[in-house]
Parts: sequence; structure tokens; C-alpha cells
Amino acid sequence: LIMGLKPNSALKASKTLFVLPSLFTFLLVGSQGENTAMDNVATERRAEESHRQDSANLLIFIMLLTLTILTIWLFKHRRFRFLHETGLAMIYGLLVGVILRFGVHVPRNMNNVTMNCSVNASPATLLVNVSGRFYEYTLKGEVSTVKGHDVQDDEMLRKVTFDPEVFFNILLPPIIFHAGYSLKRRHFFRNLGSILAYAFMGTVISSFVIGLVMYGCVTLMKAVGQLGGDFFFTDCLFFGAIVSATDPVTVLAIFNELKVDVDLYALMFGESVLNDAVAIVLSSSIGAYQPAGDNSHTFDATAMIKSFGVFLGVFSGSLALGVATGVMTALISFCFTKLRDFPLLETALFFLMSWSTFLLAEACEMTGVVAVLFCGMTQAHYTFNNLSPDSQDRTKQLFELLNFLAENFIFSYMGLTLFSFQSHVFNPLFIIGAFPLSLTAVPYQIAVFLGRAANIYPLSFLLNLGRKNKIGSNFQHVMMFAGLRGAMTFALSIRDTATYARQMMFSTTLLIVFFTVWVCGGGTTPMLSFMSIRVGVDSDQDSSVNGTQHRNTKHESAWPFRIWYNFDNTYLKPLLTHSGPPLTATLPACCGPLARCLTSTQAYENEGHQHNDDSDELVLNDGNATMYGDVTVSTDASGTLTTNHKHLSASTMGITSEEALDQELAFGEHELVIRGTRLVLPMDDPPEPTMTLPPPPTSPPPFSDPFSDPFSDPFSDPRRNRL
Amino acid sequence: LIMGLKPNSALKASKTLFVLPSLFTFLLVGSQGENTAMDNVATERRAEESHRQDSANLLIFIMLLTLTILTIWLFKHRRFRFLHETGLAMIYGLLVGVILRFGVHVPRNMNNVTMNCSVNASPATLLVNVSGRFYEYTLKGEVSTVKGHDVQDDEMLRKVTFDPEVFFNILLPPIIFHAGYSLKRRHFFRNLGSILAYAFMGTVISSFVIGLVMYGCVTLMKAVGQLGGDFFFTDCLFFGAIVSATDPVTVLAIFNELKVDVDLYALMFGESVLNDAVAIVLSSSIGAYQPAGDNSHTFDATAMIKSFGVFLGVFSGSLALGVATGVMTALISFCFTKLRDFPLLETALFFLMSWSTFLLAEACEMTGVVAVLFCGMTQAHYTFNNLSPDSQDRTKQLFELLNFLAENFIFSYMGLTLFSFQSHVFNPLFIIGAFPLSLTAVPYQIAVFLGRAANIYPLSFLLNLGRKNKIGSNFQHVMMFAGLRGAMTFALSIRDTATYARQMMFSTTLLIVFFTVWVCGGGTTPMLSFMSIRVGVDSDQDSSVNGTQHRNTKHESAWPFRIWYNFDNTYLKPLLTHSGPPLTATLPACCGPLARCLTSTQAYENEGHQHNDDSDELVLNDGNATMYGDVTVSTDASGTLTTNHKHLSASTMGITSEEALDQELAFGEHELVIRGTRLVLPMDDPPEPTMTLPPPPTSPPPFSDPFSDPFSDPFSDPRRNRL
Repeated sequence: LIMGLKPNSALKASKTLFVLPSLFTFLLVGSQGENTAMDNVATERRAEESHRQDSANLLIFIMLLTLTILTIWLFKHRRFRFLHETGLAMIYGLLVGVILRFGVHVPRNMNNVTMNCSVNASPATLLVNVSGRFYEYTLKGEVSTVKGHDVQDDEMLRKVTFDPEVFFNILLPPIIFHAGYSLKRRHFFRNLGSILAYAFMGTVISSFVIGLVMYGCVTLMKAVGQLGGDFFFTDCLFFGAIVSATDPVTVLAIFNELKVDVDLYALMFGESVLNDAVAIVLSSSIGAYQPAGDNSHTFDATAMIKSFGVFLGVFSGSLALGVATGVMTALISFCFTKLRDFPLLETALFFLMSWSTFLLAEACEMTGVVAVLFCGMTQAHYTFNNLSPDSQDRTKQLFELLNFLAENFIFSYMGLTLFSFQSHVFNPLFIIGAFPLSLTAVPYQIAVFLGRAANIYPLSFLLNLGRKNKIGSNFQHVMMFAGLRGAMTFALSIRDTATYARQMMFSTTLLIVFFTVWVCGGGTTPMLSFMSIRVGVDSDQDSSVNGTQHRNTKHESAWPFRIWYNFDNTYLKPLLTHSGPPLTATLPACCGPLARCLTSTQAYENEGHQHNDDSDELVLNDGNATMYGDVTVSTDASGTLTTNHKHLSASTMGITSEEALDQELAFGEHELVIRGTRLVLPMDDPPEPTMTLPPPPTSPPPFSDPFSDPFSDPFSDPRRNRL
Repeated sequence: LIMGLKPNSALKASKTLFVLPSLFTFLLVGSQGENTAMDNVATERRAEESHRQDSANLLIFIMLLTLTILTIWLFKHRRFRFLHETGLAMIYGLLVGVILRFGVHVPRNMNNVTMNCSVNASPATLLVNVSGRFYEYTLKGEVSTVKGHDVQDDEMLRKVTFDPEVFFNILLPPIIFHAGYSLKRRHFFRNLGSILAYAFMGTVISSFVIGLVMYGCVTLMKAVGQLGGDFFFTDCLFFGAIVSATDPVTVLAIFNELKVDVDLYALMFGESVLNDAVAIVLSSSIGAYQPAGDNSHTFDATAMIKSFGVFLGVFSGSLALGVATGVMTALISFCFTKLRDFPLLETALFFLMSWSTFLLAEACEMTGVVAVLFCGMTQAHYTFNNLSPDSQDRTKQLFELLNFLAENFIFSYMGLTLFSFQSHVFNPLFIIGAFPLSLTAVPYQIAVFLGRAANIYPLSFLLNLGRKNKIGSNFQHVMMFAGLRGAMTFALSIRDTATYARQMMFSTTLLIVFFTVWVCGGGTTPMLSFMSIRVGVDSDQDSSVNGTQHRNTKHESAWPFRIWYNFDNTYLKPLLTHSGPPLTATLPACCGPLARCLTSTQAYENEGHQHNDDSDELVLNDGNATMYGDVTVSTDASGTLTTNHKHLSASTMGITSEEALDQELAFGEHELVIRGTRLVLPMDDPPEPTMTLPPPPTSPPPFSDPFSDPFSDPFSDPRRNRL
């Protein structure tokens, strides 16, 4: 994408083959410049002008983001929680969109001469002979000629419109990677079965339900005469797929701040993250559904099976690729142990390897975003343990920043595009007002809600049959309500807006995103209290409160997970990281020599610590650094505020473990003073600095949980790292 | 640049005005597809294929960088210092270039039909009517038709060639910003006069000398008949300007590791950084030299004065813009003090503001790179003091990473382009071998060396007349020898390769960069020891050794600097940062009320500390955090190795302060244990943790230097932060 053609580069090779003996009569308004020097100057000036314009447009977005950041800060400062930063970004985007559309009148660029050649081929490159000098043109795409409306200030609005591939190749990857990298893995794996069910079966069910409801609507509209173009069943299914991708951003930010029940959090986060992966592959499979022959929109069993094969192949291929590069990074950082001395090199390597996952997947015709997700999870599970503490911080912070910027950029662009996009299908209605608009959107909203309901409720019922730790009806309602649509839905719908159906989808999707982010996002906090969901729960606190439950985690989990867990703990962790037990301890005696040569010296050193560490979950088995107390170590963005929110949530919401919170409140004052303190001391040092801190309030020493160790989160508390 | 046109968007507005009644006869090899669905599929497939190819090409670069990182690590690990990472990146790039050129044979893309329309206009957008459907084409640039050679595998090589604007808009800004942000300001300002002289007068002298020598060569070549195209005097001057930009990367990395004399370091770094800014503006001014009338390559006094005006205007405009946004960021972070609680927001804001400097400058037709440089310096001087310690780390690490990636990317691309660029002027010679090639390059090398000599020696002589602390002849020789050419020279020369002269310049520049990076870069270490330059000098140690010299810094400095320093310390620092004395203390009594309302409460708090802190330079007057001991606080990339290099350099080179180093060596072991320890404690806390550390070895308590305080570097030691 960034990669372009070098101007003025040669085009000789293909020219010799495909030279078209051409005859091109012309009639041009303007002078017939003979002076080549003057022509050169003019061309350069045009290029400069275009660059200047591009810079100015990008500047608009940067300013928008800056404004959003300052306002977010104000909101956070005032603890205003009914409008999330993404909702805010959208509002600012909308305002700028309105200004650009109705306020700014840029005179039409007279240099943009449009020639109307009639040929019957659309080559990728066109060479135009202008009085003996050759100019290279590249294909941008087809221009739809059926336009029902007259747009006045085309130029400016077209300029602020990005190539939709920017979303897929630049903005989405860091967001998705960050989601994978910051996944709270212990609770994720505890609920793996349910998450997979919601993400895979749920998304497919939802797509088909939405598709069917939509098809009903479309047929109805066609009968009434409201439909202005083709809208096939595959289009409906495609719409169902893109709208089924729920967004983890907004709701989970609120969950983070309120410290909602960990299981609900894990279910929501896991589902939304995998959801995106499923939706993107599903939509591309539906796009690949091409029945044989001319009857291109009828049902064809073989084509359907082929589509299903594409889905499976692309998904598993991307997954394998992502995991493979993740494992490779882990191996590199495992083998080059001395790389730990150079955090910059380490961070750069980590970044490049994660990026190359995306590129590799795209080059292999897989889905880069899906590969990046699983790469992120693998990196967090294995590579993270091999990194130096400095690099752990750096990588976390880097991807946090990239995620933050990309997310807010997408949402502000969404707001802007509502007015700047020029092919909205119900365009005349926009000018009259929002009322008919929302009427048009009602059937779609109904479809989306029905789809979500068909996903959550039946599946929860089925899952509860097998789960020991049931998914309560209040959880189900929250999951139903909080299924926001966001960046992924938007990116998928803006990718192709060539046909009438796609344009209609895009417009509708925008409205759905606005509605869910503002209404559902804003309503999450009241919803949680209405449904009496536990808030203010610390993940560790949770497990200590339900002591026996925690101990039984392993038996609660689904069997495929148990097998995998054993395999991972016995072979993979020792092979790929420095944190597990040495292979010599886990492999059978006959493999002794092999195990010895594959085990690093550090793993042996760890072995001793391992046994000590088992008794205290707060001590990360990082092999190099000990962190005392979860609260003091966190150097995250919302440090002080987290504490404050605990106050708030404790007073407004129903809380289960009262005395634990009392302790925390008492501790709060102290925490404020110590904030910014960061103690990463070597193991052998006596823990003197902790003398000034009170002991961690919620974790009594006899806390040995054999399960919690291998999945002890490398992030001291990833849920707090989100703003 | 990233911003593109949305495919399929409307083009109606201009169409109605400029519709050309056209007649286009065609003769196309291939089928005349009637089925629109099939056409659509074909277009999509072509776009996918192109995207796949782009991903694969980008992947090549990412892999190159990964390989470079691993090898660099090996070099660093083995303390191999004769080939810098940038030289290494170039070698890998060369290898891949050779493979792509001679090894890979990609079949020509049959879809790239090139049509040869004869019109006499080159509009920015072209609309082609293909049997009733309209396709949009955009202008890529002119294709040079005079090609003396036949390239076989055009397609692949063209694909790995980037748009040269990528360098200016994406890769250079972070490099230049990092240079400004990590400038060691105390020593920079101490040598400000000399640095400005070298950077401004020196660069201009160098450009003209190189231009004149080149013009001689070109006239000679023309006489001999070796010249294959036009090469005007302005071209020679342009070449002089782009080749005068010395690169700070390679040599300074070596200087860092060896801890070379701080004054030499400051001179080299300051000159190289400002050099780049001068060269880029100078070259664009020379490009803007357009004499009136048709005689476009003769001398014209008015045009020359106009060019000079452009130079002054663009340079001062960019400087003002950069400083303005820097000050604005400082003000924002000064006013929104509570932003410190959210390091993520703070870092994002810092990043966006710095980026917007670049965009703003480009949108105002200034030079973004120059603006970014001065923005970086302003950010380091003011904004940095207002940031939370966490954000200080984050911003430093972020730009360090961006700089590292961009730098190595450029250098590996340089290596690759030697073979992938298809318009090298001495192309046939390449195949025969490097020998005739280097012969061709000799006159240019001579010109470059003469230019450098004409810059350094006369200016040093003049400067020494005024300086108390003379620039020794050994310093001059090193500055002469270590004037490498790097990223900026390359970016400037690849920007425009349309004409014969520019192509020749580009090829020559590449050779010059290779030569200087490999030969001069590799020879720096022997050169330093040959010239008996002091190495292993700590910047603070240096000042304690030359106690009286340090105390007199202010009187040594140039008078404009002294005035500015007083102004800065009295008004700007208190106004913009939390670190200076409060305005109430510095402003005259009559301005009392104004001063009181402009002073933050934090500044008052600082006032008390200020007096205490004066006695100890190692305590940063950060208002919030105290760092104990420069060595233990540094969490930089080369922590352990810095110590090791000290060992090495102490044993191999002549060292002045023996006992200080002995202490450091004794301390070294301890440092290895404590590495990774990071103590950022609140002011009010008793400094308990330092009890375990020995007192800083090289800075005795009575170290009050009124000058060192305002410029006390916020980076504990920026020179160590470079790898």
C-alpha cells in the first residue's frame, strides 16, 4: 500500500508487446503547451499541490485525534463514563464531516481534466502520449455511472476519503494484535469452550439469521418499490457476516474501569476477539461463493461446499501462520538469550516479526488480520516470557499506543465518513433529517438484534447444560446488550462500495455502529447495575473469594483444553520459554540426553525458584525480576483513577466481598502516594523496599494453585492497561 | 501519501466541463469480454494479485531488517566495531538486490496492457470508457523515453522500488525528530557558535566547492565525449548541496560507544543535524532557481537573489513552525497537568503534536523535516520536563525504536537499490565489475573531499580565533574524515531521477554513501586512536576533571547564546515548564500579579527543591521524581555493554582520568547486578533503596554549577541511549 510505483520508471517491457496502434482525436479547453520546461514545472507544481492537500487533510485527522485526547482526558478526569472515547471521536468526526460538506467550498480543480476515451479494455497501466512525451497512468477502479444526486464539492470530500485498504493493512492489524497480546489468558482458557462456541457457531448463526431477516426485508422493499438496485441473497448473507463482528473496544473499556466479573469479561473479550476473525473469513468466503455458469445468484451446493472449504482453509491457514511466526519469535528470543541486553534490538525484532506475520499471511493469500491475532496470543504466551523486563514494558506500551491511535482514528473517520461519503444510498433523506433515516434503519436494527439474540440465548442454554459454572441469565442479557459493532464491521463494509447493495450496506452499517456505540455503549453502566452484575472484582480476589472454585478450574475446563494444557506445560513451555520447568524434569527418563541439550541453563535456575514461587501467585516466575504487589507494580495509564473508580463502584453498586474492599479503600490513600514507584529488583536482593508498603490485602500466603502458575499473566493486570 | 483516492468514487463534477468528444480505435490482443461479472472478477483478482505482490515485497524488507538485527546483536555481543549496523544493512540489501536482479525471473505480467494514446494534455485524472463502463486512471508521472539499455525483468524490480516520497514523508521525519529530541543540549549550546558556522557557512561553502569541481569535471567529460546528456551548472550546485549533508548515524554511534570527548561529539552531532536541515533547504532553493525568459541555465542575479530569499524564508519559516508546535505542546502539557496521570494519553498527544508539525509545515509549503528537527529540540527542552516519568520513558523509547527501524530500512534499501534501480547511468559498467565503476566515481569522491576540507579547515581556523577552547587539529582531522554521507543525501538524490543529470547524481551518490559508510565509518576507531583523541570520557566526569573550564562555560559561549540563555531561563522555562524557578522569582516586582497568575503551584514547590538540587547535578529537577545515580537509573539499551566498552576502551586507548576509571571499573561488577533496577521514588520518601548502592563515583558533592542546572539533560545520558 505504501509501496507505490516510482514515477518516471520504465514501462518498456510490456509496451513492446501491447503497443496499440491508436488514434486519439482531441478537443481540449486550454493552451497547447509547446515548452517542455514549462510543462515540467506545471507537472511538478501539480504534484506539490496534491501533496500539500494530502498533508492538510491528514492534519485534519491528527487535529481531530488531538482534540479527542484532550476531551477524553477531561472525561476521565471528571469520571464521566456515559460516553466512551470512541463515541467521542465519532462525534468530532461527524462535526468535521458536516463542516467539510456544508461549510467549505473548494473551487473545482481545473487541472483535473477528465478525458473520455472509448476502448474496451481496462489495463492496469495506461501510457498516454502527450505530444511526444509519455505519461504513465494507473487504474484506480471503476467509476459508478448511476448517480441519482448532484454533489457540488466533490473535490474536497473525495480528498479526505481514504483508500479502504488502509484500514485492513495499517489500522486494523495493531488493534487486533493488541487484543491478542493483552488477552487475559487464564480466564480465557478457563472459558475456552464457551468462547469458541459463541465465536464460531454463534457468528455463523447470527450471520444466517441476519441474512434471512434481511432477505425478507429486501423482498418486501422490492415489492413496495423502495429498492433502487439489485440485492441478492448472497449480499444479505454478506451483510449478516460483517455485522456479526462485535467490537471489544468500548464495552471492555468500561468493564475494565468497573472491574466487572472476570468470567463475564473473559466471555465478552474472547468472543469479540475471535468474532472478528470469524467474521472476516466468513465474509470473504461468502464473497468467494461463485456458482458455476451464468446463474450467478442461485443456490449451488458445490459452490457452497467450496465456500465452506475456503472458510476452513483460510481460517486454519491464517491461524497456523500466526502461531508459527509467534513460535519462531519465541525460539529466536529463546536461543539468542544475550539479546536481552539490548532491549531496543529485542523490541524491534518483536515488532518486525509480528508485522511480518501479517505480510506473510497476505502474501500467502491468507487473512493477515486473523494471523496477527493468533500471533499476538502466541507472543504473549511464549515470547513474552523470554523478553527482558524492559522489552516487556516497551512492547506492551508500543502496541498500546498503536492500538489507541488506530482505534480513535477509525472511529473519528467513521463519524467523518457519514457526511463525506458520496454514495450513501438514502442520500436525499439525509438532508431532510434524521427521522426518515432512522425509519429506514429500523428493519436492519431489528435484524441485527435478532441475530445477536439467536447467537447468545440458544448457545448459552446449550453451554449451560455442560458447564459447571453456569452462564447466568443476567450475563446473557449483558452479552446480548453489549454486542457493539465497531472498527471491524466498518472496515469490512467500506472495503467494497461499488454496487448499490454494498453502498446500502455501508450506510446501514454506519448507522448501526453509531447506534450501538452511543446507545449500547453509554447504557452499559446502568445495564450492569440493573442486571446486578458484580463489579469491583479483582481477578485474584475473585479466585481467593471462591477458593474451591479456583482450585477446580482445571476440571471445569473442556477436555480439549486439558489435553492441550498438559502438552503445553510439559513440552512447549520448556522448549520455547525460560519460564517453565526444565525439560529434564518433564520428559520421561529415556529422553534425558535430548532434554538436557534442549534445556537452557536459565531454566535450571528457574527450577529452584519455581517451587518457591508456587506459594505466592503475585511473584511472577519471570526468572529475572520479582514484582511485589500487583497494585504498586502497575505503571499503567489509569493508575490513580482505577483506585478512584473502586471508591465509586463500591458506593454505587452491589459488592460481594465487603471486607476486601474496605481494605482496598484503606489502601487507596497509600497507593496514591506510592504511584509511580516501580520496583524491579533482582531476585537475590532482600525485598527491603516493600517494607514501606502494607502487605497485599487480598491474597493470603497459603495460595498455592498449581494451575494458576503456567498461566500467570505476564501483564501484572492487563485489564487495567486499557484506558 | 498514504491517502489515496477512493476507487469508484464519483468524477462527475469535472466530467461535465471537460468531456472530450473522443474517438479511440483499438486493437487488443485478447478476448473482448462482454460479461460484466467476469470483468469484475478479473479486476478484483488483479487488485488482489497486486496486493499480494506488495506484501511479499515489503516482507523482503522486513526479513532484511530482522536479519540485520540478529547480526547486529552478534556484532555487539562480540564487540566487533569495524562495521556498523548501517553498513551491515547495506551489505544485506546489496545481496538481496543481486539476487532479485540476476536470480529471480518473474514472468511479465500480461495484464499490464499499455495503451498508447496520443493526446496533448496530461491531466491528473483520466476517465476511460470501456464499452460503456468508466474506469478511473490517475497520473503516476512521466516516463522517460530515452533508455539506452534493455532491462529484462522489469516487473519484479519495479515492484521493489518505493515511491521516493516515502523517504521524506515517512522515514526521514522520525530520524530527524529523534536527532533533535536526543540532542545533548548542554554541550550543544556550549559550542553553538561553531556548530552554526560549520552547519550554515560550511555547508554553503562545501556545496559551492563541490559544485565548481564538479562543473570542471563535467566540462572535461563533455570535451572527452563521456557525457551522455545535459548537465548544467545548477545541476552541479544541486549535487553539491545534497552531498554536503553529513550523516550523524554511523560515526556518532561509534562515538557513543567509545565515549569520545564531549566537545568533539557536540561539534559533530550538532553539525550533522543542522547540516541536514541546511542541505535540504539549500537543494530546494537551487531547484527553485529559475531565471526569467528562455535562457534557463545562465546566471541571473535576480533569480539568484530570489533563490536566496526562498532559502531564508523556508528555513526560518520551518524553524518557526517547529518551535511553535513544540511550545504549544509544552503549553498543553503545562496547563493540563492532570494529564500526567494518563501516560498513554500524554504519549499519544506528544506523538500527534510532533507529527502535526511535519504535516503543518508541508501544508504551508515549508520543509517538514526541518520543522520536525526544531520541534524535537523544543520538545526536549520544554515539553519533556512537563511529562510524567513514565511518558518520558515512553516517548524516548518510541522515537528510539522508530529511528532505529527507519534508519536501517533506509540503509538496506540503499544497498538494494544499487541493483534494483533501472536507470543507473553507468549501467553497462556495473556488469563488468566494480573497477571501472570506482574509476568513474573518483572525480566525485575528490570533489566531495575537497568540499569537506574547504568546510572544516578554514572555518576551524576562523573559529579558533574567537574560541577560548580551541578546536585542535586532531579534532579537525577527525571531523574531516568522519563526515559520512547517509540517509539524507540518499533521500535527496532519489527524490528526482527523471533527467540524465539526476540519474548520474543518484548513482554517484550511492557510491559515495557506500564508500563513506564502509571505509570512513569502519576507519573511525583506528582514526580516533591515531589522532589520540580522548575516549572513555563521561560528560559529567569531563566537567569535574576540567573543573574551572566547566565553571566558565557561560563566558566561553557566544554572546547571542548568552542573551538567549538569560531570556530562556528567566521567562520561557518558568512559563512553559514546571522545572524552572517560578516566574514570581524571575520577573521584576512590578509584574508581580501577572507572574503569580502564570505560575503553577508546582513551580512554587520546586523552588524549595531548586536550591537543594543545585548542589547535586545528578538529581534531576523534575519536580516529581528523583533519580539517584546516573548509572543505576539508566535503563537504556546498552546498559551492560556500556560498562564493558569502558573496560575495553580503558585498556586499549589512552585515558586521562585514571583513578576515576578505576572506580568505575570496580563499580562495574556491581552495576551488572543492579542492572534493570529502576528507582523512581517520590521526593518525600526517604531514599532508602540507595543505601544498597555505593555513592556515585565521579561526582563529589561540592559540584554546584549554576550553568549546568537549566540545561541538565532530562535524558540521564542521551549518548548512551544510542546503540
